Amino acid sequence: MSDTQVHEHPQSHGYSANKEAYQRRLKRIEGQVRGIARMVEEDKYCIDILTQIAAVNKALHAVSLGLVEEHLGHCVVGAAEAATDELRDEQVTAKVKEATDAIGRLLR
Amino acid sequence: MSDTQVHEHPQSHGYSANKEAYQRRLKRIEGQVRGIARMVEEDKYCIDILTQIAAVNKALHAVSLGLVEEHLGHCVVGAAEAATDELRDEQVTAKVKEATDAIGRLLR
Amino acid sequence: MSDTQVHEHPQSHGYSANKEAYQRRLKRIEGQVRGIARMVEEDKYCIDILTQIAAVNKALHAVSLGLVEEHLGHCVVGAAEAATDELRDEQVTAKVKEATDAIGRLLR
Amino acid sequence: MSDTQVHEHPQSHGYSANKEAYQRRLKRIEGQVRGIARMVEEDKYCIDILTQIAAVNKALHAVSLGLVEEHLGHCVVGAAEAATDELRDEQVTAKVKEATDAIGRLLR
Repeated sequence: MSDTQVHEHPQSHGYSANKEAYQRRLKRIEGQVRGIARMVEEDKYCIDILTQIAAVNKALHAVSLGLVEEHLGHCVVGAAEAATDELRDEQVTAKVKEATDAIGRLLR
Repeated sequence: MSDTQVHEHPQSHGYSANKEAYQRRLKRIEGQVRGIARMVEEDKYCIDILTQIAAVNKALHAVSLGLVEEHLGHCVVGAAEAATDELRDEQVTAKVKEATDAIGRLLR
Repeated sequence: MSDTQVHEHPQSHGYSANKEAYQRRLKRIEGQVRGIARMVEEDKYCIDILTQIAAVNKALHAVSLGLVEEHLGHCVVGAAEAATDELRDEQVTAKVKEATDAIGRLLR
Repeated sequence: MSDTQVHEHPQSHGYSANKEAYQRRLKRIEGQVRGIARMVEEDKYCIDILTQIAAVNKALHAVSLGLVEEHLGHCVVGAAEAATDELRDEQVTAKVKEATDAIGRLLR
């Protein structure tokens, strides 16, 4: 973790409280992807590989949604509170746009 | 690779010709997921993490589509050719249904 | 429009300012779906029908994202401002959860 | 239905046997989209509109999958049978690629 990073966003993210849970879930997903590579190595049936990929998609979606929920509750709502009155609308609008764009990328 | 596996599906999958390419792509995706876990560890900004998850989704979709294409060209078309006349329709129908179900799981 | 509806949500939605634009877009999507039914009626090629369905999916996604953006900027942020202090956290959390659940249904 | 269309694809599509069922389903989806436009007109709550859009997405996915299944079983397998030996591989490969591209557009 770089010092810069720490100062830019010091413990302030939506997901911070559940950091370890997210790392565990991502570790598990990493293992699932490794398992899929092994299935290819072992010449497993295409359909079974596709089923495992669908499971990884689903697990990643769940992680994304968790991050979205915590981001909205923390960062977007936080922007609404923290900003000074003159800047508020602009800053909140920018945060909402940023979150929506991220959601759009998840929807593809 | 277990002997059983080899005998069950001896080199016969759609993706066999590109096995190493698939393993490389899955290795890269595994690395991307590990990178996302590291972003959480380093308290990166939620939106940047979501962007990386969207990139993994996209990479997995590309792998899925490749597998679907090779499965259709190899296994489904193969079933149409290999089966004896009496069983053919039934076997092809079963293969097509199996492939469609797998595609449905990818569409979620 | 029922009186009840008006009193329940009097002009207060995120999308209200763009109501007519949304109605036009949905009218166009309705026409696209009607066009797909006509393609079936006229025995058009399956792949061309699938391509049109993909276009409708895309148009619906764009509408969804617009609604999500306006909902977040209006209703979620609004909840953060409007609620009394004691109830605020609870109300904002409920609004954020509701929005995330809706996004989850769009991701399927 | 134009004469040209009839002669180009005379009753030969995967979905032909279920043509009326598809038209009914698409009619229903068209009505759902019209209902969403009415919800906007009546200032319904954003989340309820998003829920209805998710329902339309789901209904369209089901129609797509049905068409994919029938296309694979009819047109792709049909190509494998109909083509002369010299052209067969090429034609089947083209059909499989076309189907996969269509599936890819559904996955977005």
